[in-house]
Amino acid sequence: MQNKNSPPSVIFPSGKGYVVLLSGGLDSSVLAYCFARAGLTIKALTIDYGQRHAKEQNAAKGIATALEIDHRILSLGELRPILGETSSLLSDGVAIPEGHYEDESMKSTVVPNRNMILLSIAAAWSIASGLEGVAYAAHAGDHAIYPDCRPEFADAMNEAIKLCDYTSQELVRPFVSFTKADIVRIGASVGVPFEKTWSCYNGRALHCGKCGTCVERIEAFERAAMPDPTEYEDFC
Amino acid sequence: MQNKNSPPSVIFPSGKGYVVLLSGGLDSSVLAYCFARAGLTIKALTIDYGQRHAKEQNAAKGIATALEIDHRILSLGELRPILGETSSLLSDGVAIPEGHYEDESMKSTVVPNRNMILLSIAAAWSIASGLEGVAYAAHAGDHAIYPDCRPEFADAMNEAIKLCDYTSQELVRPFVSFTKADIVRIGASVGVPFEKTWSCYNGRALHCGKCGTCVERIEAFERAAMPDPTEYEDFC
Repeated sequence: MQNKNSPPSVIFPSGKGYVVLLSGGLDSSVLAYCFARAGLTIKALTIDYGQRHAKEQNAAKGIATALEIDHRILSLGELRPILGETSSLLSDGVAIPEGHYEDESMKSTVVPNRNMILLSIAAAWSIASGLEGVAYAAHAGDHAIYPDCRPEFADAMNEAIKLCDYTSQELVRPFVSFTKADIVRIGASVGVPFEKTWSCYNGRALHCGKCGTCVERIEAFERAAMPDPTEYEDFC
Repeated sequence: MQNKNSPPSVIFPSGKGYVVLLSGGLDSSVLAYCFARAGLTIKALTIDYGQRHAKEQNAAKGIATALEIDHRILSLGELRPILGETSSLLSDGVAIPEGHYEDESMKSTVVPNRNMILLSIAAAWSIASGLEGVAYAAHAGDHAIYPDCRPEFADAMNEAIKLCDYTSQELVRPFVSFTKADIVRIGASVGVPFEKTWSCYNGRALHCGKCGTCVERIEAFERAAMPDPTEYEDFC
């Protein structure tokens, strides 16, 4: 049991300061905690690109407050019409699907080019702040339905970020080879208050327990053999 | 004289529809005209990232209206604090430098990671609209002070854009081997109303004639041996 719960080692980048993309979800919250606990200078960036609820943003605020780090929430709600009306994460008119990420219905949760937009703004803040790049919580469990979660996309973005300024900038992904269960173990080892993080695609009082990201969250705690402090609607 | 004024041939991309980044400046206005006259479907995107004046945006509106194309002006003014206070294009507290682009003082006109931000949003709109990519007016005269105008940066962005979605997306730069004088000749050949475009970094009633982009505009018309319809302050 001890071995099963031991987290894998996080390999930190060589720079001293990074902008961390902090959605307020589990993965990015663990990343912010890891970097802060390792003594790196971090600025946390949360971007509202027109999501139908603000639960994740509020979670991000809670995590940043707990860590006492510089945190900005950037409202880019004007992006919504550009991003289209087909994503269930943006449009109230499209139902949030239930089930596993692999299901065909999950494609409605894709937001066009989301990651490039987030990374580009984070890199701008890094340059303007004299930091050394952007860190985000891409991991091995990221799903094929999201084209901009593929490692080859992140590799191309790393090349672009290296060339976007004359200062040294990089895109770092310390969790890229880890599963979500690994991330839960790592988070527990650095004291992440998981109950402050928000994963659910729905924006109700509690996590629904049925959408793709809730299903994945539940499985991650189970596989990590760690207690899950999340309150789910099903279990009320 | 005839030969000198003959424009070089524009090689168009193979797709049928693109988002054109339209700043309202000379280069992007010529690009929009070329694509529209060639019968391509285009949507024009203008992004307000917190510039100190709206002259270019208004020029973009004039060009899009003349072409009767779908045009959006996206206000991302909230980006301004993220992009920092060091750029003279954003901050009223930093003077617009006069002279040539090569001058050291011109570095104050750099906006951190501007092009990646613009391209990422344009690509999102292309995906959401079922178009085939993004076109922008990068050209051989783009200056070394802007790291994100380098061809190698655009090459890396093209790779990232190809991978950001499962539909076929690309970044096209039809003017990449042309000088600004070439672009003036091309513009004249497709009837661009140059007087509707705006280059000047200052936002006064007329072009100042002294900032880097005005100096370049004046030189481009001279080298193209074309009449320059721009009204400059100096000549009032």
